[in-house]
Amino acid sequence: MAIIRKLQAVKTEQDHLLGIQDLSFSKVTSILDQAKTFITLNKSASKKTDILRGKTQINLFFEPSTRTQSSFELAGKRLGADVMSMNIVNSAIKKGETLIDTAMTLNAMHPDIIVIRHQDSGAPNLLSQKVNCSVINAGDGSREHPTQALLDALTIINRKGKVEGLKIAICGDILHSRVARSNIYLMNMLGAKINVVGPKTLLPHSIERLDVKAFTDMKKGLDNCDIVMMLRLQNERMHGSFLPSPREYYEYFGLTPDKLKMAKKNALIMHPGPMNRGVEIDTNLADDINRSVIREQVELGVAVRMACLKIFCKKT
Amino acid sequence: MAIIRKLQAVKTEQDHLLGIQDLSFSKVTSILDQAKTFITLNKSASKKTDILRGKTQINLFFEPSTRTQSSFELAGKRLGADVMSMNIVNSAIKKGETLIDTAMTLNAMHPDIIVIRHQDSGAPNLLSQKVNCSVINAGDGSREHPTQALLDALTIINRKGKVEGLKIAICGDILHSRVARSNIYLMNMLGAKINVVGPKTLLPHSIERLDVKAFTDMKKGLDNCDIVMMLRLQNERMHGSFLPSPREYYEYFGLTPDKLKMAKKNALIMHPGPMNRGVEIDTNLADDINRSVIREQVELGVAVRMACLKIFCKKT
Amino acid sequence: MAIIRKLQAVKTEQDHLLGIQDLSFSKVTSILDQAKTFITLNKSASKKTDILRGKTQINLFFEPSTRTQSSFELAGKRLGADVMSMNIVNSAIKKGETLIDTAMTLNAMHPDIIVIRHQDSGAPNLLSQKVNCSVINAGDGSREHPTQALLDALTIINRKGKVEGLKIAICGDILHSRVARSNIYLMNMLGAKINVVGPKTLLPHSIERLDVKAFTDMKKGLDNCDIVMMLRLQNERMHGSFLPSPREYYEYFGLTPDKLKMAKKNALIMHPGPMNRGVEIDTNLADDINRSVIREQVELGVAVRMACLKIFCKKT
Repeated sequence: MAIIRKLQAVKTEQDHLLGIQDLSFSKVTSILDQAKTFITLNKSASKKTDILRGKTQINLFFEPSTRTQSSFELAGKRLGADVMSMNIVNSAIKKGETLIDTAMTLNAMHPDIIVIRHQDSGAPNLLSQKVNCSVINAGDGSREHPTQALLDALTIINRKGKVEGLKIAICGDILHSRVARSNIYLMNMLGAKINVVGPKTLLPHSIERLDVKAFTDMKKGLDNCDIVMMLRLQNERMHGSFLPSPREYYEYFGLTPDKLKMAKKNALIMHPGPMNRGVEIDTNLADDINRSVIREQVELGVAVRMACLKIFCKKT
Repeated sequence: MAIIRKLQAVKTEQDHLLGIQDLSFSKVTSILDQAKTFITLNKSASKKTDILRGKTQINLFFEPSTRTQSSFELAGKRLGADVMSMNIVNSAIKKGETLIDTAMTLNAMHPDIIVIRHQDSGAPNLLSQKVNCSVINAGDGSREHPTQALLDALTIINRKGKVEGLKIAICGDILHSRVARSNIYLMNMLGAKINVVGPKTLLPHSIERLDVKAFTDMKKGLDNCDIVMMLRLQNERMHGSFLPSPREYYEYFGLTPDKLKMAKKNALIMHPGPMNRGVEIDTNLADDINRSVIREQVELGVAVRMACLKIFCKKT
Repeated sequence: MAIIRKLQAVKTEQDHLLGIQDLSFSKVTSILDQAKTFITLNKSASKKTDILRGKTQINLFFEPSTRTQSSFELAGKRLGADVMSMNIVNSAIKKGETLIDTAMTLNAMHPDIIVIRHQDSGAPNLLSQKVNCSVINAGDGSREHPTQALLDALTIINRKGKVEGLKIAICGDILHSRVARSNIYLMNMLGAKINVVGPKTLLPHSIERLDVKAFTDMKKGLDNCDIVMMLRLQNERMHGSFLPSPREYYEYFGLTPDKLKMAKKNALIMHPGPMNRGVEIDTNLADDINRSVIREQVELGVAVRMACLKIFCKKT
C-alpha cells in the first residue's frame, strides 16, 4: 500500500486530472482545502477573481451536459480565465475528423486547460498524451468522473466533518456508472466503508475487489449507513435486458422513506443529478431539506472545479 | 386605482421582472431613465463598464431566439457580468429533468440573475418562487414579454418625447402575442390610447376589458394613430383554422402604404421582429427610414436590458 | 498592374476584410507583421490584452466550423473584446428572417466587428454594405477565405523566411475551394509561382487566367515544389459525378510518400483541416513533424486573426 501511494504521488507530478485513481492523498487534501476557500467566494457579492486571468480554458463536451459543463464554465469565468465551450454537434467531428485531430487542433491554439467529457472510457487519457496543456476529465464513458467524487467528498465533509469511518451506500446502476467508480476510489482513500447496492444485472462482476461490499437488497445495503448516494438510472438502460421496468426498479431499488429507515437517523441523501423522480428516488425525499444535500452538491461542485482549474492549470 | 398602484408598488420590492403588470409607474420611469444613459454608452468607443463585475448572469432560453438572447448577452457583457447562455437543446431537459430541477441546479451555482424564455405562460413566475436570485422574464408563452414593451416605450419616447396622449394601434395576432399583452399594460400605464386590430379569430374574447378598443378593419383601427405597432405572424398560425392564407392575411391585415394613409402623417411603424416581409408588413415600409423605427427598437433594446439587469440584479 | 495596385489600395480604405483580392500589398504586410507579435503573446503565460476592451465582436457562422470559429473566438477574447458567437441553428433564420434582416438586427446592437461565415459566395460583401461596423469574411461559399490564406503565408514565412520565389502546389478540389482561391491571390501577390493540381472535373475552366499552371498529374504538379498545400476533399463531392471513389482519389491525388518525392527534399506539407486521412493525405505524412506544418497553421491562425481583428476593428 505504501508503495502504491508512492507511485501515485509520482504520477500526480503531471498536470492532468484524469481520475481519482491517479491522485495522491495529499493532492486530494489540497484540492478540498482549496475548494473550501471558493465556497465562501461563491456566496459573496463579487465572485470574480484574477487567478486565471490570461489563461485559456476550453470545454470540449462530446456528451450533452447541463450541470457539469455549466459548473466548469462558471468556475473558469469566476477565476478570470477566457472560457470557450465547444459545441461538438456543430463541429468538424461531423466532417469525420478524429478526436485526436480535434484535440491537436485545439492544442495548437495554446489553451492552458482542456476540460473534456467523452462517451469513451479513456479518451481523456489519450488526449493528455497528445497535448501540452492540462487535461481535466469531466466524465469518460463508464470509467471516471473525478470532480464529481471530489464534490461529493467536500459535501460530506461540509456536513459530517470528515469521511473517515463513515458508512456509505452507493445505490443503483453500478455497472455503467463513472460516478460510482470515482466515488469508490475516493471514499476508500479517505477511509470510508462502502456498500454498493443494485440489481445483479447492474453490479459489475468481482466488484468486491474494489474493497466494497455488494448487496442486491436495498434494506440490507442501507443498514446503518451515514450516506445514501443514489445514482441516476440512465434511460437507455430502462429498456432491454438490464431491467424489467422503471416501476419495478422503483419498487426494489428506488429510495423510499421505508427503505431509508434502515440507514442512520441523520443519514444524508446524495444524487449526482439529473434525477429521475419516481424512478430511482422518491420525489419528496429528493426535496427534503433535512436529509437531501443534492443542491449543496451542485453548489460545492463549482467550488471544487475552481480548485481543480487553479491547481491543475498548465504551469508556464 | 390608487389601491392597485399601491399594491403594485409593494410587489416591486422583489427583485424579479416577471411582467409589466407587476411594475409600478415609478419603477418603469426609473428603468427608462436608466436606459437612456446606456443608449449613449452603446454608441461610444468603449462600451464596457464594471457595473456588474463579479456578478453571474445565466440566460436560460427554452425557445430559440436571435435578437432577445443576443440583446441580453451583450447587455450583460457590457455591464461586466460573467454571462453564461444555456443551450437547452443539449441539456439535461432531454434527460427528463423538470424545469424546476434545472432551475434549482442553476440556482445552486449562485447566479445573480437568471434571464428566462419559456414556451409556457407563468414559467418565470414559478421559477422566481424557487430561486434566490433575480429572475427576468424574456418572454413566457402568450403571457408577457416585459423588456420588449419597455424598449418599445423607450423608442416612442425617443422619437415623440412621451407616450402620454398618443394613439397606438397594435395589429395582428393579438390572441397569442405576449408582446401585445405587455404593450397593452405598459402603454395604458403611460397614458396612451390603444387600438387592437386583427381578424376576429386572433382577437381574444373580451379584450376590451384591458382598456383597449378592438377593430377587425385595419383602416378603422389605424385611423389617426401616432404609432402603428405590427406583430409577427407566427408560421404555426398560418396553417389551420386561424387564417385562410398568408396572402389573404396580407390583403386584409398586412401593413401597406394604402392602409398606413389612415394613420397620422408622421406615424411611426414598429415591429418586434423577426419580420415576415410581405405577410404582416410591406417590405418597403419596413425599410422606410422616415417611418420605420424597427432598427431603433433593437438598438434601444440593448440599453433597456442593461437598465433591467442593473436595477433587478440580486442585492447581496 | 500598377493601376490595379492603386485601385486596390483605395478599396482597402474600408474597414472590411472581405477577400484577399481587396487587399493591397502594404496591408498584407502590416497584417503579417502585426500577427508576428501575437505569435509570441500566445505562447506566454498571460495571453490577455486590453487592445479591444470595450469592443463587441459577433461571430455569425451559418456553416458549422470548429477551427475557424474557435480561432476567431479565442483571438477576440485574448484581445479583451466582448465576443458573442451566434448559434444560427437556433436562430430566427429558422423563423424565415433574411440574412440582411439578421445582420441589420445585429448591427443595431452596435458591434464593432462581425465575423461571418456563409455558404453563399458574396454574402459578406452584401453584409458589409448594410452595416456600419467592420465585416471579416471567415469563408464564403467557394469564393474567399482570406484569413486562411494569410495564416498560410505567415506559416510559410515562419519556416522559409519568405514567400517570394517559392514554388507552391495547391492540390485537390480547386473548383469548390475558397481556400485555393484566396491562396492563389495571396501567394501570387507575394511573388510565388503556383501550380494547381487536381482531377479535371475539379479544376475550374480557364484557371490559368489566375496566373497559375494547371496539372492533372500529381507527380508533374509537385515537381520541384517548396510547398505542397493539400485541400480538404468535401464528403459531398465524394459521391456523384465529380469523383469515382475516395479510394481511387487517394490513388491518383492523395499525398503519399511516393508522390511527395517529386517535391523538394525540404518541401513543407500544409492542409487547412479538417483532414480526411487516407483520402487526400497519407496519415503518416500528416503527422510527420519534419515535413507537416499543419499544427503550426492552426497556431499561427489565432495570431493572424488577432492581427485582423485589431487592424480592421471599427474606428470610432
